[in-house]
Amino acid sequence: MARWEPDARGRLVQAALALYGENGYENTTVAEIAQRAGLTERTFFRHFADKREVLFDGGSALQELIVSVVADAPDPLAPIDAAAAGLEAAGEQFFVPERRDFAGQRQAVIASNPELQERELTKLAALSTAIADALRRRGVEDPAATLTAEVAIAVFRTAFERWIDETNRYGFPELVRDSLDQLKALTAA
Amino acid sequence: MARWEPDARGRLVQAALALYGENGYENTTVAEIAQRAGLTERTFFRHFADKREVLFDGGSALQELIVSVVADAPDPLAPIDAAAAGLEAAGEQFFVPERRDFAGQRQAVIASNPELQERELTKLAALSTAIADALRRRGVEDPAATLTAEVAIAVFRTAFERWIDETNRYGFPELVRDSLDQLKALTAA
Repeated sequence: MARWEPDARGRLVQAALALYGENGYENTTVAEIAQRAGLTERTFFRHFADKREVLFDGGSALQELIVSVVADAPDPLAPIDAAAAGLEAAGEQFFVPERRDFAGQRQAVIASNPELQERELTKLAALSTAIADALRRRGVEDPAATLTAEVAIAVFRTAFERWIDETNRYGFPELVRDSLDQLKALTAA
Repeated sequence: MARWEPDARGRLVQAALALYGENGYENTTVAEIAQRAGLTERTFFRHFADKREVLFDGGSALQELIVSVVADAPDPLAPIDAAAAGLEAAGEQFFVPERRDFAGQRQAVIASNPELQERELTKLAALSTAIADALRRRGVEDPAATLTAEVAIAVFRTAFERWIDETNRYGFPELVRDSLDQLKALTAA
């Protein structure tokens, strides 16, 4: 990418992903990422604390969006449907078709490194806690709030895995709805 | 505890838990654990690789038991009920009333340390993968296998949290069944 392109952050993310894929996450340095992006290391560190954070960019915004949709969902919505509405909204904003290749590459890098896997699991656990809190503020009691939040994470992970599959032709929100329908069928008494 | 007691492993676990609770996990050394147990450091290292492993003792046996029960569950059992049977069996063998105080103390230590939390999440993710594999061997297809396994982990975590609560009067298998019933109610279409 050319030097005068304005989106330094986006270029750094793309360069990092490309290098992690080519040489492995462990073998890639910040200096190499900056060079590939046509930027300085100083610019890198204005955007990211370290090479790991490049992969978790946007996680807080994702959580905030999901929590706010769960909190503001119409009153009659059942807890699980309020949680699903949050996941669908996240899909519409974050997991758009143009981001799918990026998401798949990112997932492959994370799968290759135990430390990154742990960080991903920790982020998902934090998301689960935040969804449970939002449900409690809607008046959902425990254990229903915790259980619904955990199940929402299960739906999220399943939808995400299906979405990044190369043969997939569906959008993320559709896969959330389908995974939730499957869940309902699986747990039908 | 007296020096001639035969169960060195159990004494080391108890001594470690007591010291983690009193002084914090980070501030406790293997030397102190061995001393409290009335044993040598050498004996400690015959049983555990490090002070972290004391907290994750039995995790593999738990996973093996759950997987074998899922694999051998009667054919007509729905995937989610096969998974629940695995969790109930785990409860009957591992989460017995005499172990509840230990489990609660252990959970408090883990909650106090991010590195231990990550390890716990990694173990649960591995358990989820193992349950999904066992379900696939029963002929359950994806995404149902993955989704059921993830939901089983959600039920497991919820039942466990409820079980270690000081006010709880129920056994772990009952809490698994109750959490699963709540889940079925929550996801009733």
